[in-house]
Amino acid sequence: MFKDKDFIYINYTGKDKNTQEIIDTTVEEEAKKANIYNEGRKYGPQLVILGEHRLIKGLEESLYNLNLDEEKEIEVTPDNAYGPRDPSKVKVMSLGEVRKQGITPYPGLPVRFSDGSVGIIKSVSGGRVYIDLNHPLAGKTLVYKVKVVKQLVDDKEKIDALIERWFSGVEKPTAQLSEDKKTLKITIPEKIFMLEDIQSRKLLLARDILKYVIDEISVVYEEVFTKSVISQ
Amino acid sequence: MFKDKDFIYINYTGKDKNTQEIIDTTVEEEAKKANIYNEGRKYGPQLVILGEHRLIKGLEESLYNLNLDEEKEIEVTPDNAYGPRDPSKVKVMSLGEVRKQGITPYPGLPVRFSDGSVGIIKSVSGGRVYIDLNHPLAGKTLVYKVKVVKQLVDDKEKIDALIERWFSGVEKPTAQLSEDKKTLKITIPEKIFMLEDIQSRKLLLARDILKYVIDEISVVYEEVFTKSVISQ
Repeated sequence: MFKDKDFIYINYTGKDKNTQEIIDTTVEEEAKKANIYNEGRKYGPQLVILGEHRLIKGLEESLYNLNLDEEKEIEVTPDNAYGPRDPSKVKVMSLGEVRKQGITPYPGLPVRFSDGSVGIIKSVSGGRVYIDLNHPLAGKTLVYKVKVVKQLVDDKEKIDALIERWFSGVEKPTAQLSEDKKTLKITIPEKIFMLEDIQSRKLLLARDILKYVIDEISVVYEEVFTKSVISQ
Repeated sequence: MFKDKDFIYINYTGKDKNTQEIIDTTVEEEAKKANIYNEGRKYGPQLVILGEHRLIKGLEESLYNLNLDEEKEIEVTPDNAYGPRDPSKVKVMSLGEVRKQGITPYPGLPVRFSDGSVGIIKSVSGGRVYIDLNHPLAGKTLVYKVKVVKQLVDDKEKIDALIERWFSGVEKPTAQLSEDKKTLKITIPEKIFMLEDIQSRKLLLARDILKYVIDEISVVYEEVFTKSVISQ
């Protein structure tokens, strides 16, 4: 049993209940087997902070009732997943219009229009193109096999997990928590001083620490510039 | 008498020796009188770090031999100012070409071409446009009246002057120098955490402090994120 703001790591594999197709998974081999492996993604147990609403509602809610190391299969209806399918979101365009946007349409092709909307070509016939702007998983009931493999209890561990989240792919800052837990010093390594989005990363990390780890803490970022940094 | 790396404040007014026109001045009333007043500029004594080469060569070099509060008139030849005038930098273009760039030319009009080059229209005749790409002050001998009005000797004062330089127009960081002068803590105010160019300003300030104030110092920037910062 877990509660809001708990830090847990989960593994899950989700299927379309109807077709039994795997639609998402944290397990690398499963992804490869299902032909949905994505090189850019980091597979393995995924950090979930309960109450954050980064997962679909039905999946997140099921986690509160799990125990550590317990595996469960849960069914999630569209209302608690990607919403119902809205038939009015299937648009008809003339073949000419679609071609003008530089698209040669065929069924199944994902398209992004210049206004930013995203859809999938359903069919092309008689000079008309039918485009479904619904989320591909809208209207689908999903089945997840899910397991909580780890829970973080120590504040310092939670902070390091958040650093991992917001500084993935770059050299990691180091954090030092004062004994009274009133001050957290985070030292930014010189290699990432000039990252274009460094200030946003710092803001987001501090926000999550204040929101989910220690409410009243001062997050103090330190960047040390010395001669050797400057002359690079 | 001053030396390299001295921090001095100067007032100057420079004239074209030939026409006696004022071409640049740090004095607001002089600028207004000469019709070259620029609202965006901060008038008043200007910080010069000797050896930085932010001023034209002839003007900077003359400063080494001045004394505090001494006013002097100096003559600067083109070689020590904006260089000689290069006749081959006067280009001829057809009126059609110039108009294609969206320019209706007349003598004296400053123009910037799409390739980034900057010039002044000299004349328009017989469908031809003569454009001078020389610096407007190239080839001119200049006369400066210059006075050193202040010198900074204290390291902390120099650091504050550099903060003023790199954080002009925004809320200023505060600096605290350790007694052994090995560490300088600079606290960034929360209002400017998300300035687009904050990291560049921090780098440039640290560079100048290390280069011109204390060679072996660690410049430690501190940014404190608290609940009140995050919830803004």
